[in-house]
Formats: sequence, structure tokens, C-alpha cells
Amino acid sequence: MISVKDAKDIILNSAYNFGVEEVPFLKSVGRVLKENILADRDFPPFNRVSMDGICIDFNAFKNGQRDFKVEGIQAAGSEQMTLQNKENCIEVMTGAVLPNNANTVIRYEDVTLKNGIATININNINDCQNVHTKGKDGKVGDVLITENKIISASEIGILATVGKATVKVAKLPKVMIVSTGDELVGVNEIPLEHQIRRSNVFTLVSLLERLHISSETAHITDDKPILKEKIKNFLKEYDVLLFSGAVSKGKFDFLPEVFDELGVEKLFHKVAQRPGKPFWFGQKKNLSSDKHTDDKYQKNTIVFGFPGNPISTFVNCLAYFYPWYYKSTGLEIEEETAILGENVSFKPNLEFFLQVKLKSKFGHLVAFPVKGNGSGDLASLVNADAFIQLPKTEKILFKHGENFPIIRYR
Amino acid sequence: MISVKDAKDIILNSAYNFGVEEVPFLKSVGRVLKENILADRDFPPFNRVSMDGICIDFNAFKNGQRDFKVEGIQAAGSEQMTLQNKENCIEVMTGAVLPNNANTVIRYEDVTLKNGIATININNINDCQNVHTKGKDGKVGDVLITENKIISASEIGILATVGKATVKVAKLPKVMIVSTGDELVGVNEIPLEHQIRRSNVFTLVSLLERLHISSETAHITDDKPILKEKIKNFLKEYDVLLFSGAVSKGKFDFLPEVFDELGVEKLFHKVAQRPGKPFWFGQKKNLSSDKHTDDKYQKNTIVFGFPGNPISTFVNCLAYFYPWYYKSTGLEIEEETAILGENVSFKPNLEFFLQVKLKSKFGHLVAFPVKGNGSGDLASLVNADAFIQLPKTEKILFKHGENFPIIRYR
Repeated sequence: MISVKDAKDIILNSAYNFGVEEVPFLKSVGRVLKENILADRDFPPFNRVSMDGICIDFNAFKNGQRDFKVEGIQAAGSEQMTLQNKENCIEVMTGAVLPNNANTVIRYEDVTLKNGIATININNINDCQNVHTKGKDGKVGDVLITENKIISASEIGILATVGKATVKVAKLPKVMIVSTGDELVGVNEIPLEHQIRRSNVFTLVSLLERLHISSETAHITDDKPILKEKIKNFLKEYDVLLFSGAVSKGKFDFLPEVFDELGVEKLFHKVAQRPGKPFWFGQKKNLSSDKHTDDKYQKNTIVFGFPGNPISTFVNCLAYFYPWYYKSTGLEIEEETAILGENVSFKPNLEFFLQVKLKSKFGHLVAFPVKGNGSGDLASLVNADAFIQLPKTEKILFKHGENFPIIRYR
Repeated sequence: MISVKDAKDIILNSAYNFGVEEVPFLKSVGRVLKENILADRDFPPFNRVSMDGICIDFNAFKNGQRDFKVEGIQAAGSEQMTLQNKENCIEVMTGAVLPNNANTVIRYEDVTLKNGIATININNINDCQNVHTKGKDGKVGDVLITENKIISASEIGILATVGKATVKVAKLPKVMIVSTGDELVGVNEIPLEHQIRRSNVFTLVSLLERLHISSETAHITDDKPILKEKIKNFLKEYDVLLFSGAVSKGKFDFLPEVFDELGVEKLFHKVAQRPGKPFWFGQKKNLSSDKHTDDKYQKNTIVFGFPGNPISTFVNCLAYFYPWYYKSTGLEIEEETAILGENVSFKPNLEFFLQVKLKSKFGHLVAFPVKGNGSGDLASLVNADAFIQLPKTEKILFKHGENFPIIRYR
């Protein structure tokens, strides 16, 4: 049985590059950017008027002039005009190019316009005010967004601005999620007394959707030859297999044997944690080019064998699959911590992933344990929004006020 | 000019119920649940074995017995067996029904199995251990998830478990996002010197996608009759119109006039904030049943006229459209706060939405201001992940260590 830290290190070492693909920029939200985004021109690309009003040559104002004859209107989207007489003004609109020979904009609120004359009503005016100078936010060629970042709405605005109609992002892994267990029936079915409905695969589908990964699902009966045949094919077709169940000590927990017989190298089995202890992890090195035509990338299939209890599957997907995916795509995710809101006593010498409800108080993030009935109690997850990670230690009491890492799932 | 608080109150007062629709449960992630989810049976539905091992009658163990003849195997998914002789045992698998006449499970790790006899190797065993008792997590009819909650992966597991193949969620508003401004060209185009590419509409599309709202976009030229004709049609077809630009004091800022002429009631124009001050908000009461066939719901169109600067549009969508949508769907969102990581001086007597980078330190959420060049500087948003909301006040200095509300956008 290895520690959570060692398990995570092994998993991160098996991260691999799935390659890069180009997608329409509006479809790139949530994906990991795999190119630097450069300014295609200065930002802003011209001396940009940033208030509706009039523009003047500041010298005229400085010399005491307050009345300015209006020469015309410079609209946004029109070619640059020229102020013909430096003692006149031009009306200008937000977003317009600042006219030639003008350098200062006075907003309409501080001006009276009458009979073609604009009179400035205030004395406190600065040279070059209300002009967003060409190149102030960035010069042509500047890196505006660095690669290896999740694309969100703010990046979308930049991509549009610099004309990146398509953008390079990390390819997504091809994932199959497999449930086992003869007690499981479909969501649409009425279970018999001794049966329950399939749920873990759908939880996993949703957890992967949070990462914008779409996945497929399958159910295999607890029959070793059938398991072996199906998994053999999945290993050829998919980058990642996620299993829920059949990795513990039960008579019908065939997966570890099947993996072994199919040449999936076991990297560990069992982690010193609760819940989620019987976690099996391994990889199959595929030497053929079954999956990818592009030979640059390794063709491994990574196998996560999560324990079948609902919370075990849930927390292990967050604690292990997520970091594996982040590392594989080049993302760096900062650790978040929270303050325990009450004392927690925990006797087993295991790392404890405890479901908590987070509250934001005066800039402090406080984590309140949500009472659950062990790893089978999916219902308790509904009242929580994160796991707090209490280290494996000899001490039994974790005190109110101490801080620990958290993993959010909302 | 009204305060941010008054603006928000007016907007929340114009929230309305779009109604309810039923969707397949796996498509419901990110949507707002509009029914209570009840347990369709006890949770767990039977006395559920929670460890692989053997089950016995605890009395036999208490009476000193350590060797138990194995009567058979109770697999998960099989009908309940009965322990025929209370001095024997049955092997049991995680997820199986606990056999009749047995009440206690001892895991394989603590047992030696040889020649059909299971010998228990430890003395510390509790009555009824490793059994997840029928109904312990919930009784049939219990509310497992209350309505008005965003559905996430943890809710998906429950929905599957109770057989909710389809689920009632809040309908999404039908939204049109409109850009104006003759300086704008398409993302695929090469702008002339005085032009820039459209970007705000795409930022808004992405911000709405975060709420799982899909929207449409249009661009209208700065020509009043054309604007009027198109907006007239949009008012008939959509629940919400979002505009970016043309709401300020410019000569071609026709929107406020057009809204007025089309019978859109102005609820406010201009908010004491930076950025985003010239924000226009109103509603059109539609008396006909143009949009919905279901007469139960009001048929208003809500009009958000955001200022055209990129950060103004961005922050106003987060600060006003988001809460309007939450209120309309019945969601309650808790306020989050962060601690200022450095002093901020801000002179104008306006509420200040400042972009910040958040860092989690020892359970404290610290907000570090990201230097920007005013409301035109979209690039600065890429380096931040939230806005901190500094109140309108006479004081000029907001001190390091003080805490204020934040609005995250990642």
C-alpha cells in the first residue's frame, strides 16, 4: 500500500502529450491553449478616442482659448480626419481614431455646443486626456496570452481581436468509462430487491465534462472471459480507461487479473487513503500505431481502476485523473487551501478525503465537514462542494482553524 | 446616475420565471433543478455488504467460535441467500445483499480460508460491522436533492440512482447579443487602420456559455432606421437582448432613442461605477403571446445595454446579467470575499470593479490587483481571474488586508 503522494507521483509520471489540434476559436472555451497568442498590430491600433466629446490641440486651451469652432465629426469606423485649423475642434466618438493635429479630448459633459461653437466649461484639463494611445496596451508581436492556459471568456475576446478565427489547443484523450458488477441495472429500469442502478459511470462522465472531455461508457458483466475480450479491444482504441469497481478482494473482482493477462503493467494497487483505498493504476504500452496516425506521440493506454463505492470513484477521479490530465496538457493548477471549520477526529492511519461545505467569510475560506455514512453515501456529496485532504498522521484530531488542501468539485 | 446597489435591485426586480422543461438527466449538468429529487426506495435498498469477506451471526463469534464452515458465496447482484446454520458462514462480496440470519462481515484480510473453513484471526470484531444498513442514508420518500440547485456531477449520481432518466430544469432564456459600431469588422477580416475586429459579442457568448445558455449574435450598422427595424423584430423573438456599445453620449449612440421609440421602458441609464458607467437597462412588456405559447409566464423582453468598452461589457455582464439570471431561475448564490493583497488608491467617487489575480494562502483568499490601462484594455483580463468590488466612498485609499466582495470569471 503506497501513500497518496507516491500514487500521485506515479500517475503524474505517466502523463503524456496527446498532441495538438486546431479548433474554431468560439469552440475553444475550456480547452488548453497550445500556442502563444501575439498582437497582430498595436493595441490599440491607433490613437483611440475613449470619450464622446470634442478633440482639440491642447496648446490652444493652454493659451486660454475656451471657444472652438466645430469643423466636423469623427465617427468610430471612419478614416482619420485632420483638424485643419488648430484653434478649431472636431467632435469625436468613443472608439474613433483621434484626428490629426488634435491630441486632447474633452467629454460632452464638460462642453456647451451652440451654433457650431463648442465652449469648454471647465479649467481642469490635462494634455492628451481621454486618448488611449496607440500601442499603450501592447505592441505588435507582444505575447498577449501564453500557451498552456485554459481558455475562458476573457481569452475569447483577445482571440477575436487579433483575428485568430481558429486556435491551437491540446487534443483531448479518448476515454472509455466502464462499469462492472452484476448488481447494476440501467437508469430506466426498476431494480429488483438485490439490485441497484448504474450511477458511477454517469458521475464520471459528468466529472470529465467539467474538463470538456467527452467520453463513452460501457457495462461489462462479471464474467472473466467476456471482461478480457472487451477490455482487450478497449486497450487498442482508447487513450484512457476508467473503471469503477471489481478491483478489490472479492471473488468476482477479476480486473487486476485481466489487466495482468492483457499486458497492462500494474503501477500500484491500493493507496493509504479513505475513501478510495483499493485503487488500481497501470498502463499498457502500445507499440503499434492502432490509435494515432501521428507517430510523434506515445501510444500508451492509461488504466484507472477506481473502487466501486460512489464516493471512492468520485474522489479518486478528482484526486488522480484530474492532475494526470492537467499534467498531460501542460496546465499548472495552483493548490487551494481552506480552514477547518470544526474539529475532526479520524483514527485510521490513512490520508482522509473528507467532504466539506465551503463558506467564504471575510476573505477566509472555511470548510465545514458534511456528515456522511461512509463511502457508499453518494447523497452526502450533494450537500458538500469540495474534499478537504487531511494527511496520514499518527494524530487523531485535526483542529478547527488549521488549514489543509482542498479539491473543489463545483 | 444611480448606485450599483440600486441598479442591481432594479435588475433583480425584473427577474422572471422562464418556466420549466424536462431534459435527459445526463444533459442536465449546469442547469438549475426545478423539482425535489426523492429516494425511490431506501438508501441503501437492502442491508448492503461493504467489505469483501465472510458474514456470520455475531452471537457465534461472541460465544468464542472462530472456525466457520463456508456454506456458499453471496455475490453482488444475486438474490439474498440464507445462512442455514448459524454456526456457519457465507462468503460475501461488496455490494451484495447481506444473507438472512447473518449480521456481521469480517473482511478477507482478517480471515484464513482453508478446506472450506474460514478461521477468523482477530478478536476485535463489532456486532454488525461492515454492513451498510438498509435505509441508513435515507428512507424511501426522503428528499435527496432540493430544487433550485445547479446540477453537477454529484447530483448526476443521485439522479441515476433513483432512476430519474429525465429531470425538470429551469428553461433557458432566449438571448440575442448585438454589437453596433461601424468601426467593427469580422474576426476573419483584416481591419483597415481605423477599424477593429468584433470581440465583445464573442466574450458575451462565452460568458453566457458558462451559465449553459446558448445565444445568438448579430451586428447592426450605426444607422438609426436599420437599428430600429432589427431591434423591433428582436424584441418580439427574444427574452433577453444584450447590446454592447452605442449607449453613451456619442452622435451615433442611437440605442437609447431607439429603445424609447420601440416602447422599451428605461429603468435606468448610467451607474456610479468604473468601468461600465454608461450602462442602460430597460424592459419591454410584451402583451401578445409572440414568444411563448404557455401563458403562465410573463412575456417581457429584458434589455441590457452595456457600454462598448471591452472591460465594461465584461464586468457588467458578470455584475448584472448573472445575478438577473440566478434570480430568474431561483438560484441563490453566496457572496464570496477576498482580502486585498496591496493598497489601492482610487480617487473618483464611483464604485470600482478592479481586476485581480486570486491566490489561496493558508485558507485565505488574497486578491492582487492586475495593472490595466482602463476600460479598453482587454489584455489585462487575461492575467486576472476576478473583479474585486471596492465601494463608492469618500476615502481614496483601500488598504492591504481589508476584505471586499469578489466576482470570479474563471
